[in-house]
Amino acid sequence: MTIFERIITGELSCHRLHEDEETFAFLDNGPIVEGHALLIPRTPAATLDELSPEAGARLGSVLPRLARALKEATGCGGMNVLLNSGAEAGQEVPHLHFHLIPRRAGDGDHGGPMRRWRPGSLDHERATLLATRVREAMQA
Amino acid sequence: MTIFERIITGELSCHRLHEDEETFAFLDNGPIVEGHALLIPRTPAATLDELSPEAGARLGSVLPRLARALKEATGCGGMNVLLNSGAEAGQEVPHLHFHLIPRRAGDGDHGGPMRRWRPGSLDHERATLLATRVREAMQA
Repeated sequence: MTIFERIITGELSCHRLHEDEETFAFLDNGPIVEGHALLIPRTPAATLDELSPEAGARLGSVLPRLARALKEATGCGGMNVLLNSGAEAGQEVPHLHFHLIPRRAGDGDHGGPMRRWRPGSLDHERATLLATRVREAMQA
Repeated sequence: MTIFERIITGELSCHRLHEDEETFAFLDNGPIVEGHALLIPRTPAATLDELSPEAGARLGSVLPRLARALKEATGCGGMNVLLNSGAEAGQEVPHLHFHLIPRRAGDGDHGGPMRRWRPGSLDHERATLLATRVREAMQA
C-alpha cells in the first residue's frame, strides 16, 4: 500500500482539496511552491499503463475545476500540470498522480520551480486556510 | 486562429497520431525527444480556465491510450505528461495542449529532457513511420 492509499483512507492526515467517488486531491506535503497540489485516482493505478480510459476521464474532468479553484485561492497567474509515469520519468510514489503547480510571473523561466524542484515543508496553519478556500471555490 | 487550429483543419500538415470528434494528437514539430507528442481539444480553449469538465474528461480518457501507444511505438520506459496553462506557466501557443514526452532510463534526472527543453527538428521519414505505428497501436 502506498502513502497515497493511506492518505485516502484517512490513516495519514492531509490537507484535502477535493474528493468524489473516483478521485481525491490534496496539498503536496513537500510543496515546491505554495498551493502545490496532487490529484489522484482512488483506485490505485501505478502508471498510465494501468489507468483505464474511464478513470482518466474522471481525472480529466476534475483537472480544470481544481486548477480554477487553486488559481482563485492562491491568486496565481498560471498553472503547470505534470504527471511522471514510470521510474524512468521520475515517478517516486507508484500511485499515479498529477502535480498542479501554481505559477506566478517572474518565478523562473523554463519551468521555474519545476526545474529546480526543491520541496519545502507545509505551514499547516496556512495550508488549512488555503485548503478551505480551495474546497469552497470547488463548490462555487 | 492558432497554429494548432490550422493543423486540425489540415491547412498545415502534421504527423497525426489520433483524432476523434473532440480531440486531436500529433507529433510536436520541435521535439525535445523522439516521439514527443501533443494532445489537444478540437474546440479551442486557451488555458485550463476555459476548458470545460466535459472536454477535460475526453482528453483524460485519450491520455492513457495515447501514452500506451506511444510507449509501444517508441519502446520508451516512462512518460512525462506536461501542461503549461497560461503565459506565467510557460505556455506559448494559446490553445491548451498536453505534451507527452517519452522517457528512457539514463536520459537525465529531475526532468531530463524537459529540464533542458531543447527542441530538435522532425526527421519526416522516421516521423511518418512512428506515427503509423502509434495509430496502429491506438487501434489495437
